[in-house]
Amino acid sequence: MTAELTITPLLAQFLVESQWKEIPANVRHEAKRSLMNFIGTAIGGCRDEAVAVALQALAPFFGAAQATVIGRNERPDALHAAFLNAISANVLEFDDTHLGTVIHPMAPVAPALFALAELRGASGRELLHALILGVEIECRIGGAVSPSHYRRGWHITSTCGVFGAAAAAGKLLKLDHTHVSWALGNAAAQSAGLIESLGSMAKSISVGNAARSGLAAALLAEQGFTGPDQPIEGVYGFAKVTSDETEFGSVTKGLGESWEILENAYKPYPCGVVLFPVIDGCLDLRERHRLSADQIAAVTVRGHPLLRIRTDRPDVTAGRAAKVSVQHSVAVAFIYGTAGLAQYADQCVSEPAVLDLRRKITVEEDANVPVETAYVTAETKDGRRLERHVTEARGTMARPMTDAELEAKFRSLIEYAAPTLDAERLVAAIWGIEDEGDAAQIARMTVP
Amino acid sequence: MTAELTITPLLAQFLVESQWKEIPANVRHEAKRSLMNFIGTAIGGCRDEAVAVALQALAPFFGAAQATVIGRNERPDALHAAFLNAISANVLEFDDTHLGTVIHPMAPVAPALFALAELRGASGRELLHALILGVEIECRIGGAVSPSHYRRGWHITSTCGVFGAAAAAGKLLKLDHTHVSWALGNAAAQSAGLIESLGSMAKSISVGNAARSGLAAALLAEQGFTGPDQPIEGVYGFAKVTSDETEFGSVTKGLGESWEILENAYKPYPCGVVLFPVIDGCLDLRERHRLSADQIAAVTVRGHPLLRIRTDRPDVTAGRAAKVSVQHSVAVAFIYGTAGLAQYADQCVSEPAVLDLRRKITVEEDANVPVETAYVTAETKDGRRLERHVTEARGTMARPMTDAELEAKFRSLIEYAAPTLDAERLVAAIWGIEDEGDAAQIARMTVP
Repeated sequence: MTAELTITPLLAQFLVESQWKEIPANVRHEAKRSLMNFIGTAIGGCRDEAVAVALQALAPFFGAAQATVIGRNERPDALHAAFLNAISANVLEFDDTHLGTVIHPMAPVAPALFALAELRGASGRELLHALILGVEIECRIGGAVSPSHYRRGWHITSTCGVFGAAAAAGKLLKLDHTHVSWALGNAAAQSAGLIESLGSMAKSISVGNAARSGLAAALLAEQGFTGPDQPIEGVYGFAKVTSDETEFGSVTKGLGESWEILENAYKPYPCGVVLFPVIDGCLDLRERHRLSADQIAAVTVRGHPLLRIRTDRPDVTAGRAAKVSVQHSVAVAFIYGTAGLAQYADQCVSEPAVLDLRRKITVEEDANVPVETAYVTAETKDGRRLERHVTEARGTMARPMTDAELEAKFRSLIEYAAPTLDAERLVAAIWGIEDEGDAAQIARMTVP
Repeated sequence: MTAELTITPLLAQFLVESQWKEIPANVRHEAKRSLMNFIGTAIGGCRDEAVAVALQALAPFFGAAQATVIGRNERPDALHAAFLNAISANVLEFDDTHLGTVIHPMAPVAPALFALAELRGASGRELLHALILGVEIECRIGGAVSPSHYRRGWHITSTCGVFGAAAAAGKLLKLDHTHVSWALGNAAAQSAGLIESLGSMAKSISVGNAARSGLAAALLAEQGFTGPDQPIEGVYGFAKVTSDETEFGSVTKGLGESWEILENAYKPYPCGVVLFPVIDGCLDLRERHRLSADQIAAVTVRGHPLLRIRTDRPDVTAGRAAKVSVQHSVAVAFIYGTAGLAQYADQCVSEPAVLDLRRKITVEEDANVPVETAYVTAETKDGRRLERHVTEARGTMARPMTDAELEAKFRSLIEYAAPTLDAERLVAAIWGIEDEGDAAQIARMTVP
């Protein structure tokens, strides 16, 4: 038997045999940080039009009131709850990113687990453990097919997320080796999601399905619904069918020793990654020099050519487009001292003060500036020239979001979408999830 | 705009503008034949273990009692009904086959329509019209990606079926061009199903999802859930992502003039296609010479080498394996004068009389015999040598199942799985569907 033939059995074995006490403290902590970001973005996104329309279309098919829609009052069956929460978590494009694969790991996995926790019961520790393992399997399978899978046109968060959700749910259901293997097979049969969908709501269907179908895959396996022996590595299995090049060695190398969740990054701003160092620079200048917007005569941003190519958009009129506009991002950073969801809402994009400042911003490209860095220079009306060179932007691996920054992001998301919620109580519950007897309590705390 | 860029808009236009009166009589009739075969195989498969396990696992998530599970008493929400009926129709591998693509067209499309008919109401004529159009779109999209799509490992019934189900449901919902395009986009985001799953129950998930997800795609689109403009033909759309070669010209060529459903074939026997001429020959000899099994001294089957390679299995012990055993097929044909589901049940495979006759059967390969033909020679104990050369087997395009044969198959499926049903009333209702005010009535008539 070659190495390729042992992928599914080895993943199943790892999942079944993993014990909580073997999970290192930094991995546990990172899982809580991921969870903080997940609950925050799910609350932030729960009023998005994609969620609202999906709710309206699918409500006639809801089963018994089993599980929470994070941040909302509806209470559908567990499968629909998983579907909707995955959409909420991902729809703002403010969720986490596993840097090696560009998978957004939480959106498929966490909703499957919270729905299952409400359905069958689970302690906070059990949920966190299953979450870590689900992310591990999701990202390792993603690694086996990267980069050709995404390049071919697959929305890897959706296509690999379903494996993570199935594996995590399988752990919570305490499935044995055979049944975990079937769950992964039942997931493979449902793996879907095209890059072509990005920019339309259809993208949210595949993300929602990754959670829903993964949970269903495990529940079907539990009852004896069989899958193939080699759903991932087989000749007509997931990897070879969806990718032109596969690298199976990485799937099992160091399994249980290195942890993919430690590669998870969190966006400080709900906009294009290339803008992060620019916004950091503006916020630093504003704070350091107590600059108010009306003091500013001009701003020059100098960065890698990609910065100009992707974001030189001085005339945006909608929030979606503003997320890739350097002029808009610089303007709101100086005016509001923050660049959060409210600053990328349609309303803010047409604010007179924002429009005014946007006109004073120039972008210069410089091939010598690395893409993850930027220079921001502000000239004030009283003749000062203030410069900031950002070499390590917030939210990168070089300068990860701190716990305090993640908390602040969480609070801002709640403020934006559900201001009546008790943010502090939720923050405390998420950090304290290991000691929570009922994991689902955290989801229920998000209901207004 | 190149031809490739107009696939989705042209398909949407065709669907929206198609009128019943433009559907030729032979196309309408073929749709009824397809429907007869669909209802029959769905009843035949409705007690299969895959259906039973799926029902058990998913019942906790059923919504309001909206739609029929064909042949059973459970009454789940419309989405779950679509899922389960697609499994039933396909699980015996006795359903229809579109010869150009090897898609089984009914299993994804018809269940979406019956569920929707029960949910929103539809006349028999409306359902039949939507069915014809759904099959058209499903098979034309399949044609665009064939043969490389299936060869790559995609279970084309599942992956293309979701488009057919979405289109058909969109027609019944009377969606306009834009919303049909969104429905196709929402379908593309869910297209899934791997050849690797064949042989395990997981295959049934992707077939069930094709119906369920297609119906959901149309219902989501109806409420304003947007899709991409080019879900099929786009750079990262369905066709290019899932296939190494695409042929878009055939998708729209002759649209509304030639009809894919006319290429639909129906299996006379629930076994490998290569066995059809052999069984035909045995049944002919038995009838023509009033042969009883105990008169037979030996049987020799001569056919294309593939016949021996695929089916020379004298010692099968289970029904599934017997479906690709020439010895078992010949034995039951002579003993029972038929080769139906009962003859491929596990029980029949171990019958002493069957075991006895199997031992008297020899397979000879002859590269000069075309694969769709066969010679069967029986030697009787009283010294006769009886030969039959079958050149056109039942169920091929050269010798399609007659209406009477389809009816007989239908009756045998009911006899096998639901003997208390009134088969004649169902047969009459299916032939008379054009005049049925409530299409869902046919589904409800299958409830025991």
